[in-house]
Amino acid sequence: MSENPLILVTNDDGIFADGILALKEALDPLGEVVVVAPDSEKSAVGHAITISDPLRVIEVERNGQFFGYGVNGTPADCVKLAVKALLKQKPALVASGINRGPNTGINAIYSGTVSAATEAAFMGIPSFAISITSFEKVDLSFAQKIARNIGEKLLREGLPPQTTLNINIPPGDENTIKGIRITRQGKGVFDEFFDKRVDPNNRVYYWLTGKKMILESENDVDDVAVRNNYVAITPLQFDLTHYELIDKLKTWNLEGDNRQDGKGTDT
Amino acid sequence: MSENPLILVTNDDGIFADGILALKEALDPLGEVVVVAPDSEKSAVGHAITISDPLRVIEVERNGQFFGYGVNGTPADCVKLAVKALLKQKPALVASGINRGPNTGINAIYSGTVSAATEAAFMGIPSFAISITSFEKVDLSFAQKIARNIGEKLLREGLPPQTTLNINIPPGDENTIKGIRITRQGKGVFDEFFDKRVDPNNRVYYWLTGKKMILESENDVDDVAVRNNYVAITPLQFDLTHYELIDKLKTWNLEGDNRQDGKGTDT
Repeated sequence: MSENPLILVTNDDGIFADGILALKEALDPLGEVVVVAPDSEKSAVGHAITISDPLRVIEVERNGQFFGYGVNGTPADCVKLAVKALLKQKPALVASGINRGPNTGINAIYSGTVSAATEAAFMGIPSFAISITSFEKVDLSFAQKIARNIGEKLLREGLPPQTTLNINIPPGDENTIKGIRITRQGKGVFDEFFDKRVDPNNRVYYWLTGKKMILESENDVDDVAVRNNYVAITPLQFDLTHYELIDKLKTWNLEGDNRQDGKGTDT
Repeated sequence: MSENPLILVTNDDGIFADGILALKEALDPLGEVVVVAPDSEKSAVGHAITISDPLRVIEVERNGQFFGYGVNGTPADCVKLAVKALLKQKPALVASGINRGPNTGINAIYSGTVSAATEAAFMGIPSFAISITSFEKVDLSFAQKIARNIGEKLLREGLPPQTTLNINIPPGDENTIKGIRITRQGKGVFDEFFDKRVDPNNRVYYWLTGKKMILESENDVDDVAVRNNYVAITPLQFDLTHYELIDKLKTWNLEGDNRQDGKGTDT
């Protein structure tokens, strides 16, 4: 571990959010922190990258001094651009957040916050995503302590290749939060619907709404842990292959009429 | 399997792309096909959903007759909106494509085409994503046969909950394509960089470029299969948990100074 490691901080709520200021402050004691983040809010962008538009960078001030670089792209864009073009060297750690709103369960699939940490994992850089499971403006000092502890740990221990940590923290403090659970990603789905409306020009439009989650009950599920006031830390990897299904699909004889030459499905 | 099952077709190249017309035509013999797709190209949007803007729907004609519904959203938005608001009943199958360009390996993470099939999987609907591994305008008739075979199979057999199939097809025909392989998602990464330029107003901008993939060599990897002229079919699931890492993280004693009450990390 270097004396003054380079740490990249990003998010998906944008460079002017409270959460990214809190995250930078939490990690400042651990090394040289550089902020590269979207210049506007990018929630629910998933793992998007910008390929058909050029990326531009602006220098952003907060509280009267230089704070970081704002990019007209997604969180994943910010990590790519920072590592490949803006930073003087490969960072030792990438931290994404502190996001307002949970990124537990299948939310991790839609999350720009998590995608930034994922992008770092693809580049072989230890990383974590950190979220507060509340959309309100809540005190972030407990989350800052967790961020600093995890940051220290990752700088010292690293992570296996192509893995990251997805951290979700209930609102509260030492007195209300019961502890930390190492969890798995919940499989609960959303109960969503579209609110159909008519605009003043008589055109129909739809709002996505009603995101009530159907929760599981096992204690080691991230959704359940945060509901029970625990910090949930889920290690993530990005091999989506459903290995059990491979053998079944091989019995499907998919070559069918496409092949009569006996070459068939090989292994 | 119903007499005339309802089939939803979408994509991320947009409702005016060649690929979605080819996919609709391929599946027409299997049931009632309804097209709901982005009204413009949405490549590399990842698993994005639109939550801060209303969605609007237009009726789209192609070749002088009604073709489908165009939506000002992402592929995942199209599936959600179709199933929850536009279709008269839950579809029996969702098909996404035929995408121009490969969605093998970690590309599956960035892919709007795959995200539409994923969204269907979350809703309990059998689905597949289908892509041609070429960016050129190539003949799609072989891909159409594969799409129809897979569609038939999924309508008859279904898929386990929260799974989908990611199909990648090399350009070519019965004579050049060697067969079908059931594959796993490749782990190869990109060799990318940013081209830094200056615009006529002296402002710096960056283009993402140089997407040369570092390939693996195992025959059961999707990237390798298509390179060797096989159709690659990878079953996907969406639990990203890195299970092996859970036990290791439990030894990290992350409670540290945050807890002195002995509650500690529980299971």
